[in-house]
Amino acid sequence: MARGIVLLSGGLDSATVAAIALDDGFDVCALTFCYGQRHQVESLAAGRVAESLSIRDHITTTIDLRSIGGSALTADIDVPKADSSSNGEVAGDGIPITYVPARNTIFLSFALGLAEVRGARDIFIGANAVDYSGYPDCRPAFIEKFQELANVATKAGVEGQAFRIHAPLMHMTKSQIIHRGLELGVDYGLTHSCYDPDAKGSACGRCESCRLRRSGFEAAGVPDPTVYAVCVGETGG
Amino acid sequence: MARGIVLLSGGLDSATVAAIALDDGFDVCALTFCYGQRHQVESLAAGRVAESLSIRDHITTTIDLRSIGGSALTADIDVPKADSSSNGEVAGDGIPITYVPARNTIFLSFALGLAEVRGARDIFIGANAVDYSGYPDCRPAFIEKFQELANVATKAGVEGQAFRIHAPLMHMTKSQIIHRGLELGVDYGLTHSCYDPDAKGSACGRCESCRLRRSGFEAAGVPDPTVYAVCVGETGG
Repeated sequence: MARGIVLLSGGLDSATVAAIALDDGFDVCALTFCYGQRHQVESLAAGRVAESLSIRDHITTTIDLRSIGGSALTADIDVPKADSSSNGEVAGDGIPITYVPARNTIFLSFALGLAEVRGARDIFIGANAVDYSGYPDCRPAFIEKFQELANVATKAGVEGQAFRIHAPLMHMTKSQIIHRGLELGVDYGLTHSCYDPDAKGSACGRCESCRLRRSGFEAAGVPDPTVYAVCVGETGG
Repeated sequence: MARGIVLLSGGLDSATVAAIALDDGFDVCALTFCYGQRHQVESLAAGRVAESLSIRDHITTTIDLRSIGGSALTADIDVPKADSSSNGEVAGDGIPITYVPARNTIFLSFALGLAEVRGARDIFIGANAVDYSGYPDCRPAFIEKFQELANVATKAGVEGQAFRIHAPLMHMTKSQIIHRGLELGVDYGLTHSCYDPDAKGSACGRCESCRLRRSGFEAAGVPDPTVYAVCVGETGG
């Protein structure tokens, strides 16, 4: 049984990826980061998701991306939110301020080190280039380039044991992701997507991540199990 | 004045690289990792080196590579050492057990994030492929591939502001590195190279890193300022 490393944030996408890796027959080791994000709700969700999928090999590691800053998720910058007049859209074009510089590069680098130590050659990440926020490190070109790097950066790669970076959600809509996860038995009520939850861990319903999640459930035509802090308007999806 | 990020471990090589970056006219931000290595002597040395070179922008960040393990530097595995009969050579062929899986990939990933936040496009690393231990992530192919990755992984890269990864020591011998550093005023007495120092921070004199450093000073024909814990034999260099 081949080992696979899954980057598990505790969000909707990575929970689905973990279920896909298990369904593909991998002996999954999940890797979660406490990276100095605005809250710990996400990493608690990762623990619940790992447990629900019977992933016993779950490593949580702490890194301090606040020492770098530069993002609404890791510095004292407000998370942009849709207001009642914006029809659910979060204002702004281009790459948003929630982009965390080099985050997926850092996450995949750790996963690569862990893969090498555990004898895994397969790394799974929930990157998605359809219903996403335009982050550069969620695109196919990034995944392909990281895979090339992995094979020159490591002892295993140099010895000819090629690494594969899997991004099975890359070309799926959020609705398709939800359908696939439900087929595989993912309990989305355990997952957390909001960038800026309240003190109880309830989702704001108005950040970009909430908006994409909400629209996804609406498009999928299935009930959204998310607990929202406030009554949110229709997203227009 | 262009900003440059320098990975500063506190060792001989990275101290030289910092001096080179300053000499090249960069406004240097130094980045040091406490990564769960066997001792903190190295990061203390980084602070001394930064101060001696008047680098005021010096960030030290903590990451836990012990959660990954797999190396004599980050797990409970003995650091290999030359004994009195080995003429100074540390036993073993191939990539040694002191190799830390994906370490330079992780370090450069953080540096990339920091570079993007600080508006730097130049990142400096003390990788060397001459007098080195055979680590895969110290070779030109690795540096070139990381640079390619940097330019698809980031907002700045996507917007056409290309990153450059500098490894100015890549093709220099340890002796040449020492001569260059001395020309630039590096005080090597402030630096630390040993993988396994004693409780006082004195170098063991017998690990691969000590051996390379010692041989370098001998070949350079200059006094070695290193404080060794024990009287070490000639290295045969």
